[in-house]
Amino acid sequence: MHAVTLRDLMWMLFLWCASCNCGPDPRKREALIRLEASRRTGGNITLNEREKLLDGKLQKLKQHDMEARQFPPSMHFFKAKCLIDQSPVFSLLQKMPKGAALHVHDFAMPASSPRCSSWTLLRSLREKIKNSTDLDNSFIRNLTLFTEDPDRAYPSQDTVWKRFEQAFLVAYGLVTYAPVFKDYLYEGLRQFYEDNIMYVEIRALLPATYELDGRLNNKDWSMRACQDVVRRFTANYPDFLGARVIFTIHRGINATEAVKTVEEAMTLHRNFPDIMAGFDFVGREDLGRPLWYFKEALSLPEDRGVNLPYFFHAGETDSQGTDVDQNLMDALLFNATRIGHGFALARHPVVKEMSRKMDVPLEVCPISNQVLKLVSDLRDHPAAVLMAEGHPVVISSDDPALFGATALSHDFYEAFMGFGGMSFNLGTLKELVINSLRYSSLPSQTKKKAIEVLLVKWDKFVSESLL
Amino acid sequence: MHAVTLRDLMWMLFLWCASCNCGPDPRKREALIRLEASRRTGGNITLNEREKLLDGKLQKLKQHDMEARQFPPSMHFFKAKCLIDQSPVFSLLQKMPKGAALHVHDFAMPASSPRCSSWTLLRSLREKIKNSTDLDNSFIRNLTLFTEDPDRAYPSQDTVWKRFEQAFLVAYGLVTYAPVFKDYLYEGLRQFYEDNIMYVEIRALLPATYELDGRLNNKDWSMRACQDVVRRFTANYPDFLGARVIFTIHRGINATEAVKTVEEAMTLHRNFPDIMAGFDFVGREDLGRPLWYFKEALSLPEDRGVNLPYFFHAGETDSQGTDVDQNLMDALLFNATRIGHGFALARHPVVKEMSRKMDVPLEVCPISNQVLKLVSDLRDHPAAVLMAEGHPVVISSDDPALFGATALSHDFYEAFMGFGGMSFNLGTLKELVINSLRYSSLPSQTKKKAIEVLLVKWDKFVSESLL
Repeated sequence: MHAVTLRDLMWMLFLWCASCNCGPDPRKREALIRLEASRRTGGNITLNEREKLLDGKLQKLKQHDMEARQFPPSMHFFKAKCLIDQSPVFSLLQKMPKGAALHVHDFAMPASSPRCSSWTLLRSLREKIKNSTDLDNSFIRNLTLFTEDPDRAYPSQDTVWKRFEQAFLVAYGLVTYAPVFKDYLYEGLRQFYEDNIMYVEIRALLPATYELDGRLNNKDWSMRACQDVVRRFTANYPDFLGARVIFTIHRGINATEAVKTVEEAMTLHRNFPDIMAGFDFVGREDLGRPLWYFKEALSLPEDRGVNLPYFFHAGETDSQGTDVDQNLMDALLFNATRIGHGFALARHPVVKEMSRKMDVPLEVCPISNQVLKLVSDLRDHPAAVLMAEGHPVVISSDDPALFGATALSHDFYEAFMGFGGMSFNLGTLKELVINSLRYSSLPSQTKKKAIEVLLVKWDKFVSESLL
Repeated sequence: MHAVTLRDLMWMLFLWCASCNCGPDPRKREALIRLEASRRTGGNITLNEREKLLDGKLQKLKQHDMEARQFPPSMHFFKAKCLIDQSPVFSLLQKMPKGAALHVHDFAMPASSPRCSSWTLLRSLREKIKNSTDLDNSFIRNLTLFTEDPDRAYPSQDTVWKRFEQAFLVAYGLVTYAPVFKDYLYEGLRQFYEDNIMYVEIRALLPATYELDGRLNNKDWSMRACQDVVRRFTANYPDFLGARVIFTIHRGINATEAVKTVEEAMTLHRNFPDIMAGFDFVGREDLGRPLWYFKEALSLPEDRGVNLPYFFHAGETDSQGTDVDQNLMDALLFNATRIGHGFALARHPVVKEMSRKMDVPLEVCPISNQVLKLVSDLRDHPAAVLMAEGHPVVISSDDPALFGATALSHDFYEAFMGFGGMSFNLGTLKELVINSLRYSSLPSQTKKKAIEVLLVKWDKFVSESLL
């Protein structure tokens, strides 16, 4: 994707301009502006004639959103959603083939509630209650974070994370019922597919699922269930490529439990190579143990000569100079394949250069970072800095159902409009979309083929959008 | 300040680590952490034994603020102020000699209100009104932006900028009365001096001042008045170094007016070389004309072989890819001596490298950027990224009186705690303080001497803080 010769030439031009008092020569100025544009994500993508036409159209649509009284990426997503939904830019992004979603979670956190109220059929409940709108709203209220006044409801990271983990627990008993687990996964894939996504990597805790007779199913059962569901889904939707699982555990565990878990992950990776992508920790970084605490466990695969790819959450924090703030560096020292969030990366210049040289991308989830209160105005999101430098990133959605967002399109809107304003173009989108497959855990042959399929879809999207 | 050999060695180490799967060797990890620390603002300052002792104390004080339930830099300054005022870190920063304040404005915007209500003696007003607390509060309300619920009072940049410019206008008629102009300036210098600042560069519109007999004084009068006041002040406070003026004009003027103004600036610079530092535009960048629009006027000094230093506000915006967003590049192409704010710089990697190579610092004003709604949580301020890379910056306060802040100490607190968390240390502060004189417009001999005086003050501060 990188036209090295052009870049080198422009860089020399830049050095020449910077070293002299060259004054306001419009040609040099133009060259510097182009040099900066070439650095951006997608800045070296050459658009064909039809893509240029669509880009022209897109820039006009963007201008409209930029000049509106309220700019959605500057607002909380819960308030911005209705504005985004009306935006023609959003409508275009929905239709756009988005490749893969590489950072999304399954439903649960590890600790289930030991006791919950007895089960009631939803039908019986509806018959008893007159106002079923209230009932439906109470489900939404309990299963998602949505609220009309998020600043009041969630004044701090502590309050929003508490509700966030609660919402997972509410869903826990529902989706760990074995048949529902499969239906839930199938429906999840359908929603991603309908948002024009062809492949998903799911971070999954793989908790025990239960049958009505009291039997509990183990992780092997869950992996096989995932295999079955994915097979069934791709049979029904042949242009969907599939899904893989990143096995996760809560970062609250201790070192001994971590050793056991990594061993379990190695076994799963050996037994389910087609569907098991690797390993990660979940839970709020600031309250959990830093990666370095788990060094013994995380060294096991290399020590034993076994390959276990890591996809660590790291830098999902605004603490600076703390132990947790070293997670980004440690993720790379443990040779992570991708980094989840990496919100703090721009503040770590050495780690940033390491990740660029090692070509380890960040999975950037704008809406999640905003709802979980790392950043308020998405124009201030550090990914704006990273994408201006062409740092490898993919856009993902973390927990779209909890945020009331579509599978990926709302996050694409926030990233495209919020991180780039008028400076991003169709080339930015094309690189992001290709990145999503390039940085997936798919085997290289499958990956190559997937990108070819994606590019055919892309050309079709461009043509249809010009009609 | 830069130990180049050490840096080179560490850089080689970094390249070596990044190129191999070196795994979690604790020594390499430690070296990388140190390499990153060396990159930060102040990262190459070697602390002496007493400074190390004070740094240890400072780190403990910081820890306390970091672990408190509410972290001031994450809150709006109007709500954080009472917390900051109680912080022992703040108390230390107040005592610290801070060198110079290089980005502060005089009181006014160019357009005065054509009509205002008739003058009343404050004494008469107080006699008429029973509750003088209400009266005093109304002054504060009209002359500053302070309010207890800033998010509600100023929901957008538009609303807060409107109030901001109004507050200047309210003060206009008061401080353009010639004797008050001098008293106001004197009192301003006193407040900076009391906050342990030894030198100030004031961006001044130099509006006509009036006498009671109706006479109007021109810009020459204002420059002479500044000279007089500064001389009087330094006579009374011999360890205060002085003040210089950066002549400013509103960026709403047209190209013809700009030519006249730049010519006026050249004349002032020739006639008042000791007190006149250079030229700049003021007013909200997003609504004003971009620097490139003024290219004819701004080229005049170079065309005529005249030196007129520029200190442009640039990048005080979150618009990306617009004409205004090119101001940062154009400021450098017009060979600016310093850049005001530069909030957008981290999103412009080429301009960032230019400014670093040209050693053009940013004047970072954290509280102003927050109150004027560029950023909500100061940990998300792009200066955190820039200072992590050791980009040249000075900390300033823009309009402290309007924000209810001290001359500079509150901004230092926000920058030190907000941009660096636990990662900044006493070396960071020392470099910032030295930067404030190093990047001033003082002649080189005066500058050298000023830094020597500052370092004597610094050593005294360190010793006294250890008692």
